[in-house]
Amino acid sequence: MVTAALPVIQPKSVPTGSPEYETRRAEILGAFADRIPQSLRLPLDLINNPPTDVSGIPASCGLLSDLDLEITENYDAVGLAEAIASRKYTALTCCLTEWFLDEAVAQAKGLDDYLAEHGKTIGPLHGVPLSIKIHMPIAGTWSIQSCLATLVQDKEDCQMISILRSLGAVFYCKTNQPQTIMHLESDSLWGRVLNPYNIHLSAGGSTGGEAALIALKGSVLGIGTDIGGSIRGPSAFSGIYGFKPTTYTLPMRGFLAAPFSAELNVLCSTGPMCRSLRDMDLFMRCVLSAKPHLLDPRLRAIAWARQLLTDPRYADLVEIKEFKPYGAADAWSKIRRMYWPDGGSVVKEAIQSTGEPVFPLSDWIWKDAEPAGMQTAEAVNQMRRERDEFRCDFAADWHAQDVDVTIGPAFVGPASAHDTAFYWTYTSLYNFVDYPGVVVPTPIKTETGESYAADYTPLSDACKHVKQLWEESDFTGAPINLQIIARKYHDNELFAALTVLKAIFNLS
Amino acid sequence: MVTAALPVIQPKSVPTGSPEYETRRAEILGAFADRIPQSLRLPLDLINNPPTDVSGIPASCGLLSDLDLEITENYDAVGLAEAIASRKYTALTCCLTEWFLDEAVAQAKGLDDYLAEHGKTIGPLHGVPLSIKIHMPIAGTWSIQSCLATLVQDKEDCQMISILRSLGAVFYCKTNQPQTIMHLESDSLWGRVLNPYNIHLSAGGSTGGEAALIALKGSVLGIGTDIGGSIRGPSAFSGIYGFKPTTYTLPMRGFLAAPFSAELNVLCSTGPMCRSLRDMDLFMRCVLSAKPHLLDPRLRAIAWARQLLTDPRYADLVEIKEFKPYGAADAWSKIRRMYWPDGGSVVKEAIQSTGEPVFPLSDWIWKDAEPAGMQTAEAVNQMRRERDEFRCDFAADWHAQDVDVTIGPAFVGPASAHDTAFYWTYTSLYNFVDYPGVVVPTPIKTETGESYAADYTPLSDACKHVKQLWEESDFTGAPINLQIIARKYHDNELFAALTVLKAIFNLS
Repeated sequence: MVTAALPVIQPKSVPTGSPEYETRRAEILGAFADRIPQSLRLPLDLINNPPTDVSGIPASCGLLSDLDLEITENYDAVGLAEAIASRKYTALTCCLTEWFLDEAVAQAKGLDDYLAEHGKTIGPLHGVPLSIKIHMPIAGTWSIQSCLATLVQDKEDCQMISILRSLGAVFYCKTNQPQTIMHLESDSLWGRVLNPYNIHLSAGGSTGGEAALIALKGSVLGIGTDIGGSIRGPSAFSGIYGFKPTTYTLPMRGFLAAPFSAELNVLCSTGPMCRSLRDMDLFMRCVLSAKPHLLDPRLRAIAWARQLLTDPRYADLVEIKEFKPYGAADAWSKIRRMYWPDGGSVVKEAIQSTGEPVFPLSDWIWKDAEPAGMQTAEAVNQMRRERDEFRCDFAADWHAQDVDVTIGPAFVGPASAHDTAFYWTYTSLYNFVDYPGVVVPTPIKTETGESYAADYTPLSDACKHVKQLWEESDFTGAPINLQIIARKYHDNELFAALTVLKAIFNLS
Repeated sequence: MVTAALPVIQPKSVPTGSPEYETRRAEILGAFADRIPQSLRLPLDLINNPPTDVSGIPASCGLLSDLDLEITENYDAVGLAEAIASRKYTALTCCLTEWFLDEAVAQAKGLDDYLAEHGKTIGPLHGVPLSIKIHMPIAGTWSIQSCLATLVQDKEDCQMISILRSLGAVFYCKTNQPQTIMHLESDSLWGRVLNPYNIHLSAGGSTGGEAALIALKGSVLGIGTDIGGSIRGPSAFSGIYGFKPTTYTLPMRGFLAAPFSAELNVLCSTGPMCRSLRDMDLFMRCVLSAKPHLLDPRLRAIAWARQLLTDPRYADLVEIKEFKPYGAADAWSKIRRMYWPDGGSVVKEAIQSTGEPVFPLSDWIWKDAEPAGMQTAEAVNQMRRERDEFRCDFAADWHAQDVDVTIGPAFVGPASAHDTAFYWTYTSLYNFVDYPGVVVPTPIKTETGESYAADYTPLSDACKHVKQLWEESDFTGAPINLQIIARKYHDNELFAALTVLKAIFNLS
C-alpha cells in the first residue's frame, strides 16, 4: 500500500495526468512523506487554512526549539561555519529537518567526530547543511531532468556535490523545479512551489524550491542553475540573494543525465542562492579553490629537447616526465564527425555550384561524416555531450599525469608531401579539448635517407599508412618544430613556460 | 582579354574544374598577376627548373637590394617596429612587394608623415607590414571562405584588422588557404602552397600561405586560424613560430562571411605566426590592449536605489546614469526560438510517454519554436550567428553607454501569480549575452493596492498583458529585489561593485 502524500499547501493545484502517471506520482509522494516524521509536520488545520503570508510559520509553529530558531533565524552560511568550527554548535542540529535526514545525521556525526579527534575542521564548509536542486545528482538520491520519464536514482555525486562534500558540506534535501526545467515558476509532479510571503504568488523558477526554502530559513545556502533567470528570478521573487556567474565559471559536470539542447544556443550557468553577500563569496571561493577546471616520439627533435632539458643546470627550473596523451585516436575519430554536422553538404554544394572540382583532401576530411548527412539539432546535442565527456576524461588524465606543459611533435612527420596531410591528430586533439598550444622551430632539419627504426611496429592502420607515406616521399630539408601545450585557459602559464624554454632551446 | 596568370612553381598541380570555373579562375589569377610588376618577378627559367629547396631564393635572386635584405633577413616584428619608431627605416620599404602594394605604399606614406609631424608613432605596430590569410576581410580586398562560390569583395575591415590598423600596421597582401579551409595543406583555386625548404612537400594548412611567406622572409608577422592545427601545422611544416590560444581569447568577429558549422562542436581560434617568441608577445599584447571584448523603472526599488546612490557622500564612489538595455524585446523573441532547437519535441515526447500532462508553462515556453520542429544542424548554425551578432551589438551599445555595472529589476513585477510567469525578459537577456548578474533583496515589499500610474501607456502587447496580470492578482507582501549586471567575464568587477553597494544598500 502506498503511504498517503504529505499534506502541503497548494492554493492552485498542478495539472492531472493519466492514471498510470498519477499512480507513479502517488508512490513518489508517498515515499517522500515516509521520511518526514509526524513530529515535524505542521497541523492539518494550518495546511487547510493557511495565511497568505507563510514566511513566519517556521518561527511561530512551535516545531522548532529556541536553539533551532537561534540557528535558523540568525545565521548565514559564513556565520554557521564559524560557529561550528568554534564548537559553539555541533554539525548535528535540528536545522536538518527534511527528506534524507538519516544520511545527513550520519554525515554530520562523522564530521563532529573528525573535529573532536583532529581539533580542526575537515574544510571551510564543515557541517554546513546545503539544499540541492533536484536535477543535481547526489549519490543515493533521486534526480529528475524534465519530467517523470527522466527520474533516475543517482549512483554518484556530480562534480559540484563531490567538491562541496570534500569541503565538509552536509546534504539533507533536494528541492523542486518545474516540468522541463524551463518555467520561471516551479510546478512539477511534486506540486507547485509557493512564495512564502504570499502563497498565491509563485516562488519563481526553475530554482524555486531553493528560493522558497532559503527564504523560510529552511536552508542557509543552496545551488541553482540559470539559463533564463532560474537563479535570479526565484531569488528575486523570494527576497534572497542569488548569483549567476558567466558560463563555465563553476563546474556543471554531471548536472543533467541527458544533454540539454537549449545549450546549443544559450549556455546554462550555476551559482549560489543564499541570505548574504558574504555567503556568495564563501561559495565561490570554496568551489573555485577546488580548481574544478583541472578535472573537466620518435622525432629527433624530441630527443634534442629532452637532452637540453635534462641538463643538470636546469634541474631547479624544469622537471621532465614522460607524457602520454589520453585518447588521441578516439579524439581524432570523434572530431572528424563533429567537424561536419551537415555531413559536408553545405560546402560541397557551394563547391559544385561553380564547377569547381572537389579536391581530394576535401573528400578525405568529410568522409566519416558524409554518410550520416545533415544532422538534426538533437544529434548535434548528443555529439557535444560526447565531446564534453572526452574533455573531462582528458583533463582528469592530464591532472593524474601531473604536468604543467607538454612538449611533443606537431604532426605525424616533419611536413607532408602534397595531398597527403591526412592525419591532423597531433594538433586537432588540442582543438578538441580547447588547450592553447604553440609551435616553435628547432635547429633540426630532415636529412636525406632518414628512415624508421628497423624494429618499428605500427600501432594501427593509420600508423602503417604514415610509415608508407614516409617511405614514398623524400622529406629532405623539411624543418622540425616542437609543439608546446598547456591546459585550457592557461595561456599565460604557457607563455611563462616559454620564457624558461627560450634560454634552454635558444629560441628567437 | 584576361592577363596571363603569374608563373608560379607548382610541382603538383591542383585539380581542374568545369570550363566556367576555369574561366573565372583565369580572371582571378590574371587580376592578381596584373598587380605584380615585371621588375619583381623571378626569371621563368628558375620557375620552370626550380631547386627543391627554394628558401634561399629571396636572398639570392637579385631582386632585393642590400637594404631590402638587411631588413627581411635580420628583423622580426619587434625589431622592425623599433627600427621604424627610431627612424632607422621609414615605413615605406621594398619588403612590401606584393598584391595591393599601391595601397600599402599609400598607407605607409601616411604613417611616415604622421611620425614626421608628431614626433611619435601612431601605435606599437607603426609601419609594420602584416600579411593576412585570405578569409579575413580587409576593406577593398577579396575574401573567400571555402571555394570560388564564396568569393566576395570586403566592404569593411573585420575587427582584428581594424584593431591592427589602429595600432599602425600596414597591410599589403592576403595569403592562400585550402578549399573548405579544412585541409592541413593549402590547395585552392590559386594553386598549391609549397614548402620553401622542399617544394615537393606542403607548407601545411589551412594557414599555409602565411607559413610559407613568413619562412621566406616575405612577411614578418601574419595571422592564422586553427580548428585542427591550421596555425600549428603550417608553422611546424615551415619552421616558424605559431600560437593557437584558448578559443575566444582573440577577436574573430567578421572573420567569415557565413557561420562555420564545425563550430557547433569545436571552436576555432586565431593567433600569430611569426619568427620569434617576442613577436607572439607583441601581437598578443597589442591586440588584447585594444580590449576587443568590449565590442564582441518603474519599481519602487529602483527609486530607492537611486536615492541612496545619489547621496553626495558617495559622489566619489559612484556615478549614476540612466541605462537603456539594447534590444531587449528582440533578444526575448530570439531566445525563445533558440531555447528549443528541437522545437520542444524531445521533452514533449518524454512528458507524454508516462501520461504526464503537459503543464501550461511548458506549452508557453516552446510555443514560438514548436512550428519549426526539429532543426537541422545548419539551421542551428545560422541561429548561433544571429545570436553572436546580437551579442556584439549589445556589447557595442553597453560600451557606448559607458557603464561598469547596471542596476535594475529582475522581473516584470515583484513575483508572478501562479501559472503567469510568462516574461523572463529581464533575466534571460543576460543569458542571451552571457553577462554575470546577481539579485539582492531590498527592504521593500509590495503593499496592498499598489497600482500602475494613471498615465501609463503600454509599449507593446506584452506590456499590456503584464499590466493585466498585475491587475488580476494581489501581490501583497511580495519581496522586491534588484538585479545587478556586469560585462561578460567581469564577474570579479561585479563582486567589487557589490562591496561598494553593500554599505550603501545595507546588504547582508
